[in-house]
Amino acid sequence: MSYIVGFGEIMLRLSSVDNERLFQSSKLNATFGGVEANICVLASIFGLKSRYVTALPNNAIGKKVEELLLSHRVDTSAISWEGKRLGIYFVDTGNNYRTSNVIYDREYSSISMALIEDFDWDKVFNDASYFHISGVTPAISQTAADLTLFAVKEAKKRNVKVSCDINYRKKLWKYGKTIEEVMPEIVQYSDIVFANEYDAVKILGIKSNADVDGNINDEDYKYIMQQLIDKYSLEMVITTKRETVSSNHNNIYSMLYTNKNLYKSKKYYIKNIIDRIGTGDSFAAGILSGIQLFDNYQDILEFATASFCIKHSIPGDWNLTTKDEVINLMKSENGLDVKR
Amino acid sequence: MSYIVGFGEIMLRLSSVDNERLFQSSKLNATFGGVEANICVLASIFGLKSRYVTALPNNAIGKKVEELLLSHRVDTSAISWEGKRLGIYFVDTGNNYRTSNVIYDREYSSISMALIEDFDWDKVFNDASYFHISGVTPAISQTAADLTLFAVKEAKKRNVKVSCDINYRKKLWKYGKTIEEVMPEIVQYSDIVFANEYDAVKILGIKSNADVDGNINDEDYKYIMQQLIDKYSLEMVITTKRETVSSNHNNIYSMLYTNKNLYKSKKYYIKNIIDRIGTGDSFAAGILSGIQLFDNYQDILEFATASFCIKHSIPGDWNLTTKDEVINLMKSENGLDVKR
Amino acid sequence: MSYIVGFGEIMLRLSSVDNERLFQSSKLNATFGGVEANICVLASIFGLKSRYVTALPNNAIGKKVEELLLSHRVDTSAISWEGKRLGIYFVDTGNNYRTSNVIYDREYSSISMALIEDFDWDKVFNDASYFHISGVTPAISQTAADLTLFAVKEAKKRNVKVSCDINYRKKLWKYGKTIEEVMPEIVQYSDIVFANEYDAVKILGIKSNADVDGNINDEDYKYIMQQLIDKYSLEMVITTKRETVSSNHNNIYSMLYTNKNLYKSKKYYIKNIIDRIGTGDSFAAGILSGIQLFDNYQDILEFATASFCIKHSIPGDWNLTTKDEVINLMKSENGLDVKR
Amino acid sequence: MSYIVGFGEIMLRLSSVDNERLFQSSKLNATFGGVEANICVLASIFGLKSRYVTALPNNAIGKKVEELLLSHRVDTSAISWEGKRLGIYFVDTGNNYRTSNVIYDREYSSISMALIEDFDWDKVFNDASYFHISGVTPAISQTAADLTLFAVKEAKKRNVKVSCDINYRKKLWKYGKTIEEVMPEIVQYSDIVFANEYDAVKILGIKSNADVDGNINDEDYKYIMQQLIDKYSLEMVITTKRETVSSNHNNIYSMLYTNKNLYKSKKYYIKNIIDRIGTGDSFAAGILSGIQLFDNYQDILEFATASFCIKHSIPGDWNLTTKDEVINLMKSENGLDVKR
Amino acid sequence: MSYIVGFGEIMLRLSSVDNERLFQSSKLNATFGGVEANICVLASIFGLKSRYVTALPNNAIGKKVEELLLSHRVDTSAISWEGKRLGIYFVDTGNNYRTSNVIYDREYSSISMALIEDFDWDKVFNDASYFHISGVTPAISQTAADLTLFAVKEAKKRNVKVSCDINYRKKLWKYGKTIEEVMPEIVQYSDIVFANEYDAVKILGIKSNADVDGNINDEDYKYIMQQLIDKYSLEMVITTKRETVSSNHNNIYSMLYTNKNLYKSKKYYIKNIIDRIGTGDSFAAGILSGIQLFDNYQDILEFATASFCIKHSIPGDWNLTTKDEVINLMKSENGLDVKR
Amino acid sequence: MSYIVGFGEIMLRLSSVDNERLFQSSKLNATFGGVEANICVLASIFGLKSRYVTALPNNAIGKKVEELLLSHRVDTSAISWEGKRLGIYFVDTGNNYRTSNVIYDREYSSISMALIEDFDWDKVFNDASYFHISGVTPAISQTAADLTLFAVKEAKKRNVKVSCDINYRKKLWKYGKTIEEVMPEIVQYSDIVFANEYDAVKILGIKSNADVDGNINDEDYKYIMQQLIDKYSLEMVITTKRETVSSNHNNIYSMLYTNKNLYKSKKYYIKNIIDRIGTGDSFAAGILSGIQLFDNYQDILEFATASFCIKHSIPGDWNLTTKDEVINLMKSENGLDVKR
Repeated sequence: MSYIVGFGEIMLRLSSVDNERLFQSSKLNATFGGVEANICVLASIFGLKSRYVTALPNNAIGKKVEELLLSHRVDTSAISWEGKRLGIYFVDTGNNYRTSNVIYDREYSSISMALIEDFDWDKVFNDASYFHISGVTPAISQTAADLTLFAVKEAKKRNVKVSCDINYRKKLWKYGKTIEEVMPEIVQYSDIVFANEYDAVKILGIKSNADVDGNINDEDYKYIMQQLIDKYSLEMVITTKRETVSSNHNNIYSMLYTNKNLYKSKKYYIKNIIDRIGTGDSFAAGILSGIQLFDNYQDILEFATASFCIKHSIPGDWNLTTKDEVINLMKSENGLDVKR
Repeated sequence: MSYIVGFGEIMLRLSSVDNERLFQSSKLNATFGGVEANICVLASIFGLKSRYVTALPNNAIGKKVEELLLSHRVDTSAISWEGKRLGIYFVDTGNNYRTSNVIYDREYSSISMALIEDFDWDKVFNDASYFHISGVTPAISQTAADLTLFAVKEAKKRNVKVSCDINYRKKLWKYGKTIEEVMPEIVQYSDIVFANEYDAVKILGIKSNADVDGNINDEDYKYIMQQLIDKYSLEMVITTKRETVSSNHNNIYSMLYTNKNLYKSKKYYIKNIIDRIGTGDSFAAGILSGIQLFDNYQDILEFATASFCIKHSIPGDWNLTTKDEVINLMKSENGLDVKR
Repeated sequence: MSYIVGFGEIMLRLSSVDNERLFQSSKLNATFGGVEANICVLASIFGLKSRYVTALPNNAIGKKVEELLLSHRVDTSAISWEGKRLGIYFVDTGNNYRTSNVIYDREYSSISMALIEDFDWDKVFNDASYFHISGVTPAISQTAADLTLFAVKEAKKRNVKVSCDINYRKKLWKYGKTIEEVMPEIVQYSDIVFANEYDAVKILGIKSNADVDGNINDEDYKYIMQQLIDKYSLEMVITTKRETVSSNHNNIYSMLYTNKNLYKSKKYYIKNIIDRIGTGDSFAAGILSGIQLFDNYQDILEFATASFCIKHSIPGDWNLTTKDEVINLMKSENGLDVKR
Repeated sequence: MSYIVGFGEIMLRLSSVDNERLFQSSKLNATFGGVEANICVLASIFGLKSRYVTALPNNAIGKKVEELLLSHRVDTSAISWEGKRLGIYFVDTGNNYRTSNVIYDREYSSISMALIEDFDWDKVFNDASYFHISGVTPAISQTAADLTLFAVKEAKKRNVKVSCDINYRKKLWKYGKTIEEVMPEIVQYSDIVFANEYDAVKILGIKSNADVDGNINDEDYKYIMQQLIDKYSLEMVITTKRETVSSNHNNIYSMLYTNKNLYKSKKYYIKNIIDRIGTGDSFAAGILSGIQLFDNYQDILEFATASFCIKHSIPGDWNLTTKDEVINLMKSENGLDVKR
Repeated sequence: MSYIVGFGEIMLRLSSVDNERLFQSSKLNATFGGVEANICVLASIFGLKSRYVTALPNNAIGKKVEELLLSHRVDTSAISWEGKRLGIYFVDTGNNYRTSNVIYDREYSSISMALIEDFDWDKVFNDASYFHISGVTPAISQTAADLTLFAVKEAKKRNVKVSCDINYRKKLWKYGKTIEEVMPEIVQYSDIVFANEYDAVKILGIKSNADVDGNINDEDYKYIMQQLIDKYSLEMVITTKRETVSSNHNNIYSMLYTNKNLYKSKKYYIKNIIDRIGTGDSFAAGILSGIQLFDNYQDILEFATASFCIKHSIPGDWNLTTKDEVINLMKSENGLDVKR
Repeated sequence: MSYIVGFGEIMLRLSSVDNERLFQSSKLNATFGGVEANICVLASIFGLKSRYVTALPNNAIGKKVEELLLSHRVDTSAISWEGKRLGIYFVDTGNNYRTSNVIYDREYSSISMALIEDFDWDKVFNDASYFHISGVTPAISQTAADLTLFAVKEAKKRNVKVSCDINYRKKLWKYGKTIEEVMPEIVQYSDIVFANEYDAVKILGIKSNADVDGNINDEDYKYIMQQLIDKYSLEMVITTKRETVSSNHNNIYSMLYTNKNLYKSKKYYIKNIIDRIGTGDSFAAGILSGIQLFDNYQDILEFATASFCIKHSIPGDWNLTTKDEVINLMKSENGLDVKR
């Protein structure tokens, strides 16, 4: 078994507690998370080997991040211990008709200022099968965008498959470049892309007359995704779908398109959400792990979607579930009563 | 910009935590709230000038109340520092089919024993445009009823508009008078009244054959409210509507009647209520603020109803939202996903 | 008024807090509960006399259990102070599509190793009218099974009615016997049985072609229960029904069959469950108490079902409600707004 | 064994948490306590029979008080369920050079307004050996002073010994009478008095040239206490001594004077106080219990002083210790390492 | 009464809880503080008028800071709402032989990047009598050093007295300048300086053969301070003295030198420290307030030292005490028992 | 660098919180610890390689233990995943004159029932230099005693040095053997022994007329330890000394005897203890690590004693310190003020 390697930024997450507004009381919940770290932790929980690569400040905060990664058997040997601070994000958790709101305080973080020479690329790609990045990293600074592009090229050179999650964050991309200027080049080096029709048309340059801001029909979706695969020579494109009824109630399912076939998952109706952040990463980890655990696309997609679903029930960025729990859900008709 | 002045009782609120019954553990949540204080705080959050008038004991508890009011820029200069105790109310918070229950311990509070001469009325009404009172204050004692009546007369004399929320509380009115004996006289001095068809018919003496305990049709509602406006020379009457599906799930909307026109708001389906107490006050604050922020009744009503809605998501009596959040909700089609 | 006597195991319950996974943080909630203790506490809350019989270790943990029973006026005079440890169960509380999971650590507990001679049976049955046991106790060890059988025989000998809840727990029954080998003999000494069609057919040896794993129609249910009553000479059989939509959302109702009549309760839609554990015990306590409080089967069943329903809103094994709250719910049309 | 009966006021105690100032955060710790209740609970913990008599409001708060008393086997059968509210006291807990501060909110409490006819005096004194009151109860209102005097006379009439703790509270005695006007008459009916030289000279009318505000020598102390015993026909007088080095550090010991003999206890140096409130009550409970447990004055005094000492280590008004712990401390030379 | 104006940086302070190491659990305590803000808040608590000037990011975090300042009546009208982030500092609170440790994350904060033109200097100095700055602000960046120098010159120009606390922080001063290069020029514009003999000799260029790293005798101290006063034309120099026995136990006192006279305060032995951070600021606020409250140097110094002492008992940066508490301590012989 | 291998039992530790008595509230703190695991974690924190060997139940609780060991880079590859339960110990944390009390619930734990064949001994001793065991493991059951003896013999056979901590626990040794019957044979296979004069004389059969229950002089100590070394062919004997002034205040130092030389450490006066459990293990880890980090006995002993000291400041069994912190303390004269 070879490594799934994630590369990106992990941050300190400071969330309000007990349904309060941020700073309503003086208590905060402090956890750690970031798109690619979330994926590495979960792949490891699912029994795969994973390595997480980032830059961390060499202080008690950076050391804590490593300790937590190690607790989940994530390989930390290629981390660069440079820079001055860990990025932070504050979460004002919403409910009902009140939207969750994120305040980023990640400028000048170690990874946002890291350079290509800060990493030992042989260690990064040692025994790697997949290299996962997201559109969040190139969104934080020009150096981070350069670094991401260098890394995917390097992966290609070393015959490591690249998986890329577009992950558009409106509050980032403040350093002068737009996502449309940066991501297409990165996607050129990718094999697997997590993107929806909006990303394809608005960011990755696919032409379509379909309305990509609303509901799309299967034919339009397939047409767009086939073009995307063709344009960027991709293996597959995967899309999560979310209906946001309220901050507590989301309905979710997902789609995978490959070899001219569209696969659709079960739909889950999640009405008492505990933590919505990191759910998309649980989906991506489910796909990357599912590829190694299952032999057909429908199972891969159902596994990823069940992983996606379960994360909504767990506080913090990390999906502290088990492979068995995810498989049970993916196979279940019902059966949610207490197990005793 | 002149002041919205609220006059009434603010109490220490002691609530059970973590979904427990009251005193199930030894932890309590201690906040402060009262109808008119809640309104002044929110009007100030919305950017208006507000002044809150009450009587407070001159001890660490009373001083804490002032500190919290000041933190939201509420003017406290007309508070009377007299009397012995702050009223208290205990909240045994319900959920599902278990009803929330309030135990009042507000007898002998400073405001319940305050006298007309305890206040400097020039300070109370200095630069005031609206004076807001509710049916809670005259419900606590004969002196408080006298004080309320004196205050609204004084407001009238000084050309300050009076806004009155009927706010019937079954557990109060224990000192010998009934609400039917007291409120009609107070409403005579009012310009804006928050009342529903039940209040109009059962308390304020309007005649109607409609069933005011159940659902009322628009025609009956308009008939009753027109009479109410005529009888008491009001500018407008405003009504909140609440369908209580469970302790966690309420559906809400509201109606405003003025100049022979009935305005109805959007309806909100709130299924994971965090705190229902103080929501009506958020509505009233929305109306009083909306009058200054918008130029048409529909917007005023939608703003107030969005304010009403958001309060259900926030623990404590006070609606710790922002004007922007309320306007976004009032204008939103959907869009409740995390903002990041 | 004579005593309802419960006999069984009470355990330390260690639950995760704040929607976390078990051990996600280092905080645990420590309460105490067990089927028959839960029933005794609630019967006492409802105003009946109750006595709880078990074996407890003679240390600070056992003494705490007694203190909590005494706080609810449960008679503890027949408890055996023998053995080395209190059983423990860990609860990893689920939500949405994640199932709650119980880890038992109850082997070698005082009651699991208790012997017939450890109890003063005159004290156990002193002034008793009902003796309640469940299928949990004979599931923990051979000695506990022997003890249970001895106890029900002794009850019969002393003209105390026996109430038996089948309460099948898949994770128990590890000592060599199956539930099918043990429970039928115990039921022979019972008067009231809490069982569903599955229990009747799969455990208690009733013949039926109906599908007892899914939904059953009334005729099949009545046919099975009549046979059950006939075979074991029972007074009545009572069944709770639960539709598990999600870990937060259960729909519940119940049925009582006696004298060839089937009674059905109202149905409750509980969508924001706080604690599902102990709800069945609240139902059983409602039946045993209802028999003394009401004079007709429909009221008994509605009272028990309202008690069952309310427990879903209260954390911990014990239903910290009041008789008035249960009666109000059983009679209510709606009316769940705050009482103030 | 006959009953120790305590008569007085029990209150809701609301304390700041985590070394905060009162209301620094919105968390409060809610426990219950009052001089005589504290004593009854501890006597019961020590294995004696005790009964606590007070007036409680017939609501969820009063019921909680009874539940907690029952958990410690205190007889609640003579409680009067009258009046409107439970008294409250707020504790702003000090440390180092910051003094703890109590804010009383106990006016208009049930017991402060209770009348002689609210109690069934046969129940109060049924099978009683000692009746304990303190100077706190006559300090709260004229009716409470009348009630206390009636009660001690009644005790005398029924041959129940009266134990009286002077317990001077500067912040009470606001209703018009001074402690010097009230306590001497009550002490006339007492057998055992808890008082120091200050109380004797300034309140109970003993003449002395000694400085009773500072340190007193044994001869002066004995002279004063002999006069006190003579004047009021007492059996014994007991005094606690406390050197307040800081809010965390108190040195304590005690003295008992009877039959012309002075007994002095060991001295304890308590440098990390957890909760100082209720410590004097732990001493008094130790004396009343010690009289039944030991056969000599030195042991009685050492037992009470060890009880006094241990309470400083336990949060809340109640001394949740055991008789064994107290005896171990009273006999110990050292030996405070972990027991494992 | 005119304003005491503080100018500097206020940060989010994230502290470990319950004696844990930083990040030992996921709970953090979030408060706000900074040298000059701490002083403004306390001066206001003492009844003086104060204004705090800083730069804050215009987001929910900056708004919370203003809300907290307003709650203590600190004037916020001259704050600059510019820049991207609020500085943060993490506190790993020590105890016994484990040292408290601060991790700064304050680079790129709003104030560290603020420019002279970001402030309305007329508003800053409106009706000001004292302008207080510390050596922390010029330590964070070159622009902040420039800003500080500009501000003290401006103060001088406007006849506002300047008070300067040297406040050397080893972990700051990373931008290229040393404290010795920057502070002497700032002190030239000051009237009152908070400095010890080490600061005078090692930073401010005073010559002395005395050992300024250890204990200094009064004559050496006076010699150094007289030189300091002469060199910089100061009114007075004030020094706090701290003996650090353990992280929990500090002994403190202070000295004031003016007009060739040395004043020394009482000494306090603080053995159970709750929070040592911000204590020096409480002293400085005590001096600045004391100047307005008392007419002699000894009282000013004792008031400041009592304020200094009390802060050790209160969690958070702010000294949530009262003028009465400080005066009581400054005058007390002993008397630390509970006030009730 | 080769491995320090620890072998023994790790338990779930359930402690009361907030200075409460055990179960005073329903909150418990749940951590994990055990003598040898504590040592492995700390050796790893100090930068050494360590492996921990035990038996764990294959459930979520056992998995959590492994996760926590992994977070500190402890090798878990030789753990046996057998048996049914993790041992538990409850801690009723004392303070002042109240002693901490441990309730063990560790019977029938996985390790207490583990057999020699449950372990892969090649994995256990792979690349090992030291094998550490304590007298706690042979105290829990006959099989555990057999296992311990087998393991030390096996270590000897493989030329791995054995380190043994006598660690006498009065509440264990209940299975039929006494410590005097078991430990001498185990010590025969040891090279380093942690024992005091009491252990030497009362358990390990050394003859001496000195009083080993009280203070011993150096000559007697040396005489006893030389005999111990001779009798068992040891390299060195190490002893911790603790003066228990109160539950909060212990004075500690230590002694090491080898090659006829006695080394004594600095003495620490710890007056505000946070957690005394696991401190002895921090000392032992300090010795085993010190042997690799330092080249002289005095430094080894000072390092171990500083490690011992620091643990008193940290909650939980594990000494979450750093090598730098320990070295700073071992070298420090004073210097405990906040580092900032």
